[in-house]
Parts: sequence; C-alpha cells; structure tokens
Amino acid sequence: MAVGLKENTDLLPIKGLKLAACSAGIYKKQRPDLALIACELGTTVAAVFTRNIFCAAPVTVAKKHLDNDSPSFLLINAGNANAGLGKAGYDAAIETCNYLANLCGCKKEAILPFSTGVIGEPLPVDKICNAIPGLLEQLSEDNWLDVNRAILTTDTVTKTISRQVTIGNQQISFTGIAKGSGMIRPDMATMLAFIGTDASVNTDILNEILMHAVNRSFNRISVDGDTSTNDACILMATGKSGIPVIDSLNSDTAVEFREAITDICVYLAQAIVRDGEGATKFVTLDIRNGFDTEECLKVAAAIAHSPLVKTALFASDPNWGRILAAIGRAGLENPDIRKIAIYIDNVCIIEHGELSPDYTESEGKAIFQKEEITITVDLNCGTESQQFWTCDFSYDYVRINAEYRT
Amino acid sequence: MAVGLKENTDLLPIKGLKLAACSAGIYKKQRPDLALIACELGTTVAAVFTRNIFCAAPVTVAKKHLDNDSPSFLLINAGNANAGLGKAGYDAAIETCNYLANLCGCKKEAILPFSTGVIGEPLPVDKICNAIPGLLEQLSEDNWLDVNRAILTTDTVTKTISRQVTIGNQQISFTGIAKGSGMIRPDMATMLAFIGTDASVNTDILNEILMHAVNRSFNRISVDGDTSTNDACILMATGKSGIPVIDSLNSDTAVEFREAITDICVYLAQAIVRDGEGATKFVTLDIRNGFDTEECLKVAAAIAHSPLVKTALFASDPNWGRILAAIGRAGLENPDIRKIAIYIDNVCIIEHGELSPDYTESEGKAIFQKEEITITVDLNCGTESQQFWTCDFSYDYVRINAEYRT
Repeated sequence: MAVGLKENTDLLPIKGLKLAACSAGIYKKQRPDLALIACELGTTVAAVFTRNIFCAAPVTVAKKHLDNDSPSFLLINAGNANAGLGKAGYDAAIETCNYLANLCGCKKEAILPFSTGVIGEPLPVDKICNAIPGLLEQLSEDNWLDVNRAILTTDTVTKTISRQVTIGNQQISFTGIAKGSGMIRPDMATMLAFIGTDASVNTDILNEILMHAVNRSFNRISVDGDTSTNDACILMATGKSGIPVIDSLNSDTAVEFREAITDICVYLAQAIVRDGEGATKFVTLDIRNGFDTEECLKVAAAIAHSPLVKTALFASDPNWGRILAAIGRAGLENPDIRKIAIYIDNVCIIEHGELSPDYTESEGKAIFQKEEITITVDLNCGTESQQFWTCDFSYDYVRINAEYRT
Repeated sequence: MAVGLKENTDLLPIKGLKLAACSAGIYKKQRPDLALIACELGTTVAAVFTRNIFCAAPVTVAKKHLDNDSPSFLLINAGNANAGLGKAGYDAAIETCNYLANLCGCKKEAILPFSTGVIGEPLPVDKICNAIPGLLEQLSEDNWLDVNRAILTTDTVTKTISRQVTIGNQQISFTGIAKGSGMIRPDMATMLAFIGTDASVNTDILNEILMHAVNRSFNRISVDGDTSTNDACILMATGKSGIPVIDSLNSDTAVEFREAITDICVYLAQAIVRDGEGATKFVTLDIRNGFDTEECLKVAAAIAHSPLVKTALFASDPNWGRILAAIGRAGLENPDIRKIAIYIDNVCIIEHGELSPDYTESEGKAIFQKEEITITVDLNCGTESQQFWTCDFSYDYVRINAEYRT
C-alpha cells in the first residue's frame, strides 16, 4: 500500500490537451494499457529522458522526433518497455508512429512514443495499432485519470495533481500524472510523468524550467537505486490561458511559473516513493549545512541506497549505526566527523560525531514506528541544504521483483 | 546456507602464531565471542582497514598502534562493534589493550584490538578483561578454527583456508580465516580476515603485497553495497620457515609469495559472498575487454549492487533486461552499446548491444536455476578484463537485517 498517498481523482482539464486510454491487450489480463495525448497546435513541449545508455527504442525515437517537429500526439503503452531489442525495437516504435500519423495526416515526427514494462519482449505493434482508431474517437479533456491508470505497472495507485495558480493576475491550470514504483533512482527520470498547463511558454524556457524542476524532484528520489531504461518527464504548455508568452526567466511570472512546476514535480516524485515497491515507510532525508549541493546529495544517496538502513526502517528498528556507516562511506571530500549531527524527526541521536547522551532507544523506537520519518544530517561544514526522499525495503520488494515476470 | 562452501576444518598451524578463543559473555547467548592471537617476536604484520570515515574505535586504535610498535597480540571480539561511541569507545578499546599489556609486560601499543557486531552499544570492557587470563593460558598453534568461530556474526559457516606452497625450494605454510556476511561492499575491507604465514617478509613489502591481494579480492565483492565501519584484513609473517627475508618485489620468490597471498584472499573473499546474508546464488561477474580496470569494476559494481538483478537471481528468472539496465547506468565514459555482448555461463544473450537471435528463454532459465552462475560482459572497447563476485537478494536478507537487533 502506498504510504500516506490517497488517489486524487479530481483533476483539472487543461485546454488544448485531449486524452484517451483503453485496454489494447498488451497485458495478458484485461486492464488499461494504452494511452494517447493530443496536443493542440501551438503547444510547446519540454522533455527530460533517462540517461541510461541502454535507453529504450521509444526514448531514442521521441528524442529524435522532438528535434524535428512540434509534437501533436504522445502515444504511451504499459506492459512492454520496448527496450533491449536493437533495430527491431526501433522499427516497432516507428511503425506505431507511422500508423497514427497516416490516420491523422500528420508527419510521424509529430508523434512521441513512450513505453514502460518488461524489457526484452517484442512490442505488440498490431495490438497497439488496432487500438489507435478507438483512442482517437475517445479523446477528451477529462481523461487524465484514465491515462494515468493505463500507464501504471507495479504501481498500486495513480499519482496525480492539479493546481490553479494565479500568475501575473491570470489563473493558470496545471495537471500532472506519473507512474513509477520500482527501478527508481535519480538520474533523470526513472519513471514516466506527463504534466500539462495552459500557460504559454517558449520551448527553450520550458525546457530550462523542466530541468530545474526535475533536478529538485525526480532526481532526488530512490526506491532501489536502479535507473530505468525508459523513463521520461514531459511538460506540455498549450498557451490557452491567455497570459502573455513566457520567453525569458527574468520575470516574476517566469519565476512563479517555475515554482509551480517544481512543486508539482516534487509532489509527483514523492508520490512515486510513497508507492515504492513494497514500501511501508516514507522517509525525508534533510541534509543540512553541506559544502555544496553535490556533497549534500552524496550523503543523501548513500543513506537512501543502503539496504541495511532500508531494512532497519522496515523493521521499525532505530539502528542508527547503519545511518552512520552510510554517511561514512558517502565519499565526503574533507570529512570532520566531530562536526556531524544526526536527528530523527526532532530527536538528536548523534552530536559532534558521537552518540548524544540524551538519546534513548525508546525515543528512537517511537519515531521509527511512524509511517513518515525525517532523517536530518547536519554536516556543519557549509551553508548548503538539500532534501531527498526514499522508502524502506520490505519482504514485498523481494516478492514483487522475484515474481515480476511470472 | 552458504552456497557451495563447506567448512574446512583441517588447518595448518603457523609456527610463531598461537591462538585462543572463548565465550566472554558479550553475546547474550553462550557462544565463542572473544579471541586472541599471539605473534612471536620478529613477526611482521601488514594491515588494511575500512575507509569508512566513521570507522570504529578499534580501527583507530589499531592503526595508531601499528604506527608505533610491532604487534605482539591481536585481541578480537564479536557481538559488539565498538563503533559510533566517540571518546568512550576509544577509551574502552585502550582499556582492553592496557589490561592485556599489563598482564604480559608489553606496551599497550603492541596490542591491536578488533571488534565486530552491533554498532552503538558500549563495549563490555569488564567481560573482555575477565576472559583474557583464560585466553592467555589456552594459546596454541592449533586454534585457528576456534578463533574463526569466535569472530562470526551473521555468518553461517567459518571461512578458512590452508596452503603449503613451495617457494624457492622452501615449503611455506599459510592459514587464513575470515568473517563477514552483511554490510559487505568493496572499499577495503568490509569484513575481518586474519592470515598467517611462516614466510619472512619485510613490513613495507608485506603491506604492498597485502594491498595488491586485497584489491583483487576483498575489494571485489558485494553482498549489499554497504561498507562497514569496523573491518580489517591482517597478514602476519612469522619468518619461521627458514626462507630468506623477502625485502623487495623484484624476485621470483616475492612474486610467487604475492600470488599465494592473492589466491588465499580471493578464496576468503569468495567465501564471504557464498555465505552472504540470505544468499542462495554465487555469481561471478567477468567483465572483459574494458578500457581500463576502473571501467571494468564500474560495470561489475553496477550489476553487483542492483537489487533488481539480485532479486531476479533469487527467483531464478533470467531477466537480462535488468543486467542491461545496470550496465547502462554504470557511467561508462565513451559507451558504444553496439559493441557490448552479455553471456550467462556460455550462452550469449546480447550481442552488438541487442538480443541475440539464438537466445532462448528456456536456455536462460536452465542457467539461472543453477547455484553458481557466471555473467560475462564483453565491452569490446579495450584489453582489460576483471572479475568481481556477488550473491542474490532473498527474503532472508530482509529477515536477517530486519531482525538483527531483536
């Protein structure tokens, strides 16, 4: 069950974006597994993709198409990652784009394909193409939730957010959806996320804003330390809200817009961790007073990726020695352990690099029994502070991943 | 159960080293938990310690003592790591050294302390000191196995090796013991290992040889990617075999000796992985034709630390997409995926970066059902090849680490 995450089914439509989802039979059992998002002419699209060198065919195709044309359609399937298949995978992705392009009279470059699911099995091109005409008929501004359901894999709940923000006297709407539960580690972006807004933003600025937001959200989460081959975060700005075009970052409007996008990405990123495979705890790592951002994130990642810390969290065992050991191997440049302090929620465990005399095991136990825990590490060697989010490691993580293909 | 690892109880005594072990009551339940090794005058000792910055008090003390004197005694306890306790931990380690030194009329700097077990609990100094006189009475050349039993924590079997090697017409004896099962990741040396030999080796050369061996053995294993706070590998050369002193690396004798030590370290390192917490599979990662050693080890570590690869191994599921994804995020400098090939045992799965047309799932399944598997990654971009060893990730890993302190 997702930790402290309820389905939010009340989503704002975004003018200029129509969506549809259906069951195309990609999964053996009947469930939604194919989705389409149509962008009205004039929509600008920003994208960030996985940096895994074995990126999937749809990632390669989507990047290429983005370089060549403005997107009209996003075609997304679950149940098959179309990865690890070389030229056959590439051809399969192109074939689905061609089919949709022919039906709609657009260029294949106006279509961005996305896939998520098992690696190494041939994409069922026929099943996808057969379902496309039906999807085109169902396109509607109200189908965000259906699309989210169609792109889930081991997720147990949808991850959605809608916001209305007043920016420069104008109401702007935002809706974002995401999937992701395993193979989650920050190296942009180990999941799929699609965010729509009716703001009007120049493509270059939109890309800058998305990268800013992703670096503060999806690049700061870990479920299992594995970076997926497929993942992408897409931001679509339709320009239908009527506010002037944002074409530079030197305005209050642009900064407010960037904040709104960052907030949405942080919410969705946290939602992925809350629904991490087998997760029973949601943990915020608050790394304070580091020398620089990189140092803070190094410490956070060492704790977040530690199977020993994660199993202790699962067991509600305040085994702080494992947190200490993780910090100790994080590769700090000029470590001075006598400055380091560690807190769980507001209780100090370590001060000046050693066990606080006031700490009691029962206090620690009480905090570790909570579903949501903040671990603060104060490095006391600089002025930079950063946050990172992770979950615990349970029997269910092993079960889910041992049974994944059976 | 340890994978393909039987207890070897037939250990060679090493002239010049006497050992003893007993139950000092450090563990709640009665079991051997304290050991002593006495080195005869003239023994040279080389040591490699954990690089974790939160290294335990005994590591700090042992390093300092090694700088000041030749060791006469190694005092080793299980059940308590004496880590994370700051000055109190340091004082406790010194107190045990002082006690033993006073009894034996040596300097405290001639004693090296070692601890392994739970982090953050005060070392029971009295229990240790009370047991020391009994240990001194029992010292014998034949107690290697008893010492190994006394230093185990979550290990299920002892890890021992004895060898006799003819070097320069002379028979040299070697005996090594190790412990380690969790918190195992290569950053020297995430376990305890003690190796004795009756060769005669100058201290500087002995240190060089040990570092060479450790870099090819203990620094190439991973159970869970966590680097311990406590660990150490100690090589003691008593000089009792009668062969001339090895005082340079420019002789056949020195090179043969170094090979023997490396073989012993590789055996013990593999034994630690075979007995990894919850392990049901022993996996050799053979990374071939990389640009340099670092590149090969990067790829190996990415696979070895991947919870997704490890859970697939546990499930005997040849989910090669996860191996591919791990290589893809390893951070290769100039990756050319079209050159990469992946084999499991002798079956090719990936060639030229994509699925081999000859590969069948049933072949993969048959290999992944074996207890011992070799995963070969041919990078085809250089001439360097390196090996690395890891195990799978099972329910038992979670159970062992969730229940560790209960």
